[in-house]
Amino acid sequence: MQRLDRTMSDVKKVVLAYSGGLDTSVILKWLQDTYQCEVVTFTADLGQGEELEPARQKALKFGIKPENIFIDDLREEFVRDFVFPMFRGNTVYEGEYLLGTSIARPLIAKRQIEIARESGADAVSHGATGKGNDQVRFELGYYALMPNVKVIAPWREWDLLSREKLLAYAEKAGIPIEMKHKQGGSPYSMDANLLHISFEGRHLENPSAEAEEDMWRWTVSPEVAPDAAQYVDLEFEKGDLVAIDGVRMKAHELLAKLNELGGKHGIGRLDLVENRYVGMKSRGCYETPGGTILLKAHRAIESITLDREVAHLKDDLMPRYASLIYTGYWWSPERRALQALIDTTQQTVNGWVRVKLYKGNVIVVARDSKTDSLFDPTIATFEDDQGAYNQKDANGFIRLNALRMRIAANAKSKRG
Amino acid sequence: MQRLDRTMSDVKKVVLAYSGGLDTSVILKWLQDTYQCEVVTFTADLGQGEELEPARQKALKFGIKPENIFIDDLREEFVRDFVFPMFRGNTVYEGEYLLGTSIARPLIAKRQIEIARESGADAVSHGATGKGNDQVRFELGYYALMPNVKVIAPWREWDLLSREKLLAYAEKAGIPIEMKHKQGGSPYSMDANLLHISFEGRHLENPSAEAEEDMWRWTVSPEVAPDAAQYVDLEFEKGDLVAIDGVRMKAHELLAKLNELGGKHGIGRLDLVENRYVGMKSRGCYETPGGTILLKAHRAIESITLDREVAHLKDDLMPRYASLIYTGYWWSPERRALQALIDTTQQTVNGWVRVKLYKGNVIVVARDSKTDSLFDPTIATFEDDQGAYNQKDANGFIRLNALRMRIAANAKSKRG
Amino acid sequence: MQRLDRTMSDVKKVVLAYSGGLDTSVILKWLQDTYQCEVVTFTADLGQGEELEPARQKALKFGIKPENIFIDDLREEFVRDFVFPMFRGNTVYEGEYLLGTSIARPLIAKRQIEIARESGADAVSHGATGKGNDQVRFELGYYALMPNVKVIAPWREWDLLSREKLLAYAEKAGIPIEMKHKQGGSPYSMDANLLHISFEGRHLENPSAEAEEDMWRWTVSPEVAPDAAQYVDLEFEKGDLVAIDGVRMKAHELLAKLNELGGKHGIGRLDLVENRYVGMKSRGCYETPGGTILLKAHRAIESITLDREVAHLKDDLMPRYASLIYTGYWWSPERRALQALIDTTQQTVNGWVRVKLYKGNVIVVARDSKTDSLFDPTIATFEDDQGAYNQKDANGFIRLNALRMRIAANAKSKRG
Amino acid sequence: MQRLDRTMSDVKKVVLAYSGGLDTSVILKWLQDTYQCEVVTFTADLGQGEELEPARQKALKFGIKPENIFIDDLREEFVRDFVFPMFRGNTVYEGEYLLGTSIARPLIAKRQIEIARESGADAVSHGATGKGNDQVRFELGYYALMPNVKVIAPWREWDLLSREKLLAYAEKAGIPIEMKHKQGGSPYSMDANLLHISFEGRHLENPSAEAEEDMWRWTVSPEVAPDAAQYVDLEFEKGDLVAIDGVRMKAHELLAKLNELGGKHGIGRLDLVENRYVGMKSRGCYETPGGTILLKAHRAIESITLDREVAHLKDDLMPRYASLIYTGYWWSPERRALQALIDTTQQTVNGWVRVKLYKGNVIVVARDSKTDSLFDPTIATFEDDQGAYNQKDANGFIRLNALRMRIAANAKSKRG
Repeated sequence: MQRLDRTMSDVKKVVLAYSGGLDTSVILKWLQDTYQCEVVTFTADLGQGEELEPARQKALKFGIKPENIFIDDLREEFVRDFVFPMFRGNTVYEGEYLLGTSIARPLIAKRQIEIARESGADAVSHGATGKGNDQVRFELGYYALMPNVKVIAPWREWDLLSREKLLAYAEKAGIPIEMKHKQGGSPYSMDANLLHISFEGRHLENPSAEAEEDMWRWTVSPEVAPDAAQYVDLEFEKGDLVAIDGVRMKAHELLAKLNELGGKHGIGRLDLVENRYVGMKSRGCYETPGGTILLKAHRAIESITLDREVAHLKDDLMPRYASLIYTGYWWSPERRALQALIDTTQQTVNGWVRVKLYKGNVIVVARDSKTDSLFDPTIATFEDDQGAYNQKDANGFIRLNALRMRIAANAKSKRG
Repeated sequence: MQRLDRTMSDVKKVVLAYSGGLDTSVILKWLQDTYQCEVVTFTADLGQGEELEPARQKALKFGIKPENIFIDDLREEFVRDFVFPMFRGNTVYEGEYLLGTSIARPLIAKRQIEIARESGADAVSHGATGKGNDQVRFELGYYALMPNVKVIAPWREWDLLSREKLLAYAEKAGIPIEMKHKQGGSPYSMDANLLHISFEGRHLENPSAEAEEDMWRWTVSPEVAPDAAQYVDLEFEKGDLVAIDGVRMKAHELLAKLNELGGKHGIGRLDLVENRYVGMKSRGCYETPGGTILLKAHRAIESITLDREVAHLKDDLMPRYASLIYTGYWWSPERRALQALIDTTQQTVNGWVRVKLYKGNVIVVARDSKTDSLFDPTIATFEDDQGAYNQKDANGFIRLNALRMRIAANAKSKRG
Repeated sequence: MQRLDRTMSDVKKVVLAYSGGLDTSVILKWLQDTYQCEVVTFTADLGQGEELEPARQKALKFGIKPENIFIDDLREEFVRDFVFPMFRGNTVYEGEYLLGTSIARPLIAKRQIEIARESGADAVSHGATGKGNDQVRFELGYYALMPNVKVIAPWREWDLLSREKLLAYAEKAGIPIEMKHKQGGSPYSMDANLLHISFEGRHLENPSAEAEEDMWRWTVSPEVAPDAAQYVDLEFEKGDLVAIDGVRMKAHELLAKLNELGGKHGIGRLDLVENRYVGMKSRGCYETPGGTILLKAHRAIESITLDREVAHLKDDLMPRYASLIYTGYWWSPERRALQALIDTTQQTVNGWVRVKLYKGNVIVVARDSKTDSLFDPTIATFEDDQGAYNQKDANGFIRLNALRMRIAANAKSKRG
Repeated sequence: MQRLDRTMSDVKKVVLAYSGGLDTSVILKWLQDTYQCEVVTFTADLGQGEELEPARQKALKFGIKPENIFIDDLREEFVRDFVFPMFRGNTVYEGEYLLGTSIARPLIAKRQIEIARESGADAVSHGATGKGNDQVRFELGYYALMPNVKVIAPWREWDLLSREKLLAYAEKAGIPIEMKHKQGGSPYSMDANLLHISFEGRHLENPSAEAEEDMWRWTVSPEVAPDAAQYVDLEFEKGDLVAIDGVRMKAHELLAKLNELGGKHGIGRLDLVENRYVGMKSRGCYETPGGTILLKAHRAIESITLDREVAHLKDDLMPRYASLIYTGYWWSPERRALQALIDTTQQTVNGWVRVKLYKGNVIVVARDSKTDSLFDPTIATFEDDQGAYNQKDANGFIRLNALRMRIAANAKSKRG
């Protein structure tokens, strides 16, 4: 096996995950300065709601060659191949978090490595800090897909660890700094894509203080959401959402529509303290309007189409699957093995669910499946079932399930 | 070992779980008629919100001896020894159901067996049908605690399977029938205690139809809940709620207070299709106002006081623990073993949580623990941490976590 | 949904799992007597090592029509589609039992239902008692594959529960009884197929007494096994054994060869107390010569070809998968979902293993995979690895893995 | 929170886990040279079978003050508080490895930290390399028990990475080098304690080559073991071994006795490829004579004294518990939580087991418990059970367990 590592001087061309923002612009310049290497910029549209063309202009200003600027619309792939497979598992980290950031990182890593191969780059770089989960998610992806790639994580290398130093470096490099960055302390650390927007840092570093109302961006407050509830019908095929109120759309269009609905009704805000993979607790706030609706609805369609034991098997494995995604192991063989199990179970998850959206609430009110319902009213009924179910069967069922406990209790009492 | 079973003629005295309602009154009479045995009635106050003294009067009318009438207030024991231990596990069945009925049955079974021992009875009886989970929950409890007890489950023995036959039997036996029972079809099948009230049957047998608004009893609709949010502080010790807004109360008083708060704000309604232990799917609606608040708050206090891996271990085991409670295995050795694990973890779960209640929403806005917080702001901060955390450590962390995937990818690529 | 049950008088034609032995011959006659129905006999060759043609002659004597006599050689299907998939999971029940009987029942049930469909039968029957696991395994298979089939389990219906009554019935019916059955108490309850032979009952009902040496049939005692060890090479493809000492054979031929080798060297005896699904403990003895070798070898080939986390995931799920097979849920959707996971992992399980067989021991001495080895000597070496692995990476790896415990210990000590 | 790290110059006194062998002697000198600090040596008797007094003499020669030399007999504590608790879990890593090295490390770490506190040291050091698991096991223990301790891992710091450089350093420092070290390549990397002796490196680095017979130290080859089998009775209380053949002994004496018995009969050799925590596969050979007997016997006593579902719960969690020990998390809160569960289950694990030892085989032949047996012969019997078990109960048991699959099959067939 060849050597797994390279030294700094080896780097010839690096693909940078580049947002066009201040931080990654400083990184771009720092890479040029420090590694004296060619930089390829990669900017992805994951539905974060920002213009991407300015990133191209900025890159050109840094002297990046036009053929080294990659701007890709990954929205459909993101929702279809990452978000939806994850939701098949009813996936939630630590009981609450819908993994909006976690699920985007593997796609960025994958595309970044593809670009490295296309452009003959030997290194990749990202703007995640050394304290968070994202560095892990990016780099586990890089290494799994291109094992000998050189990874440059500037935040772990440079000495620009304070906001002041970073701004000074930017100024010196002629990188334009927006007013908001210059004033009043650090901004929130945010991440956005079609699934969610997240907030960390700043006032949130005190978990005993309530988040400020003006932090939230994608959802209105439940208090100001409409006074009238809205009913929405969601249709599923093989566990994936395929239509809203009868209108079939592409995966990312469906999620965008759900975001619009959820945001309007104040749905999907979350404020929690989570456990990062690197070992610390961290307070984060999330807005996941569409995902919050989707999770509820997916559980509901499974409730009538999935066998009990299959559903329980999924529930037992879900926290493990969620942790794999949270900690960055999307491209691992164990995540794939679990996905094989999950996907197998979704063949019968077909049908529709009706939800009522109202001031922060997603209320499931109805569900049905013409093709795969396992709900049998003739058996479940409280009325006379005409013999469909023989109640006497329960005698033996209970007695044999109790037998081991009866034997134990008898043995104990016999011995006194 | 002695024989595990007895025949009908053996029954001398039977302890009946007696609510005083129509169904268990018919059962009382049927037991006297069919088994020609002495009947002991047991009526428990679990916070269901009904007068219990009428049950005594009814029992006397059936000729039950005064010393054979047991009416017990079990509210404190119920919440302290059953509900709270269950909530230490963040226990939810099938992702949604808070197990309000399931958790009450083991206590009823336990007390019923105690009464059987006290009164020298050799049999016990209950009013649960042969289709549901409650028969299993009662009887697994009976058998575990008194292995040779004779169990009489009238619904599995008699031929009064239609509503009409039951009413006819009642009429003939002189059991007063309320107007509502005589008119307009079957009522909902309901169960209530301090944790929840449940509804099954009737219109709910069609899971594709929305539940009727006038079915709900403990909660107002979110639409008519107050327009102003209410903040509430919950204090925990060893994982259990001990005070609300600074006022310490007994376990059942705390839950009653939470119910009042939740009910007022339209919190805790649930409409779902669940999988019964006997093998069928069933649609149920639940109101769990206090429990819904408690679950959210318990997770929140754990989020700052529980080690990550301990929290994940609990999450991994929770569905199994929930299933044990749902299916009636509270008194089993495996439930006790899991409880030992759960309780061990709760020693550090001390602190407070602030929730905001608003129109169906329970929003966690703050949490802290003076004694056991594991949240370390000097490490988590996005600001300069003065070296508390060495970002370079992440290099090795990621590289060794990636190593197996790199070796695999290299091996694969070398072989082509 | 149609009614799930039928009454006795409905039965027109029943397919009986018929071994040709005393018990199932009595059952055959009893079915004819009791149900007055046409009987179809089904006799399967699963490698139990008995002639099957005598079963045909016996069936004809009972007046079974020739077209109603089915004798099938299922050996290849048994090993290929049931035994091998199970071994992909390293499947062991309760730490010891290799599931030799459990894995044969689903195939018998499946074929029996196929024959029921082919011959227009409306019922099936088997000779398993009401105390054991086999009745469950058969019947869960029947119901899963033909949900409205009538199941007749004579041992649960008739009154021939003592050995004497059974023999009397046989005598009266003119069924020939071998000398061994007439003399000296009950025989062992045995079951044999290509994977194992099992023994229960008789002297074994006392678990504190050693099994008698002359009970064992397929293996010599280690004491009398050859004094010279024998080396055997086993080759695997996608997790399945494909060749022994370089000779490719069909699945059942491979297992037969392993049985021969194992039996000769005293390998695969097992004496244990197991927990039956119906709630009691039972003592059983098993001979699984080939399976014991196969399990060891399969783990060994996985040890160099399977990713660590995939292997651990399999290990975590194995007891659950084993229990599903033990309790008869082969045809359940949850077993299929787990199988999908297991099979996914076996794509890379290719290579060979060398075992040394000696007086009861199966000793793995070598293993390799030209195509899929993940063992990298350049990294694992204790010698100078030329930088293939950077030992300094372990600093950060350990420090971040320890971080949560350090924070907790610091928090604790700070509070005193 | 105080800063978690210190720089090299901070080190004043370091406690070294010192065996007295070549490697740790070089480390001792290197610590003195490099850190210019006071060294405290700690040498533990864990039953590795070596004289410890020579370590004292060597330490004195290096100028270690007498009060800084700690030599402790930890054998009883090791077996009682570490080995036995682990065996309560039937703990095996990756299906085979009995964790002999893993389980000793937490005790060494704990004692080392105690000595650090006693002697006012601010640092600890060990001789484990940067590639293995032991560094992790030591250091996770250090950090968990003394979160701000400075850890010095010389193998990850120095440049003595080849055998030659190490020997050169030793020679220059006047450390006596045994002949065997000077000649013919590296020795095996070995570790020994009362539970096992392990071998890695050298010829073993090729997993497709058989280990050499003269490597093994504690066990004879099965081929040369006695021709006569030996029966041994083992008595358990609360899951722990307390007597052998009727003789009660202390924990470590019992294990020593089992080692003697096992070693004599060629029991407990193991040759495998395992997955290290740091990400690589490694081939190791192990001799665990006593532990191999103990594991078999413990499972056997559990087989008659443990409830089925408790046993299965333990089996499901065992691989996770084993991984925690393997990877060094003995002092973690999640290991403690699992231990609480395991220990709870062992209250009834009382009784005796008879094993037959013969040429590598440990054969369980009998087991009983006067106080806690759950084996009920009146129920399990194949003879007439006088009604102890009602076979008809199995009808309902099977029918309700099958119900969900019948409903599914009916639904499917109805839809075509």
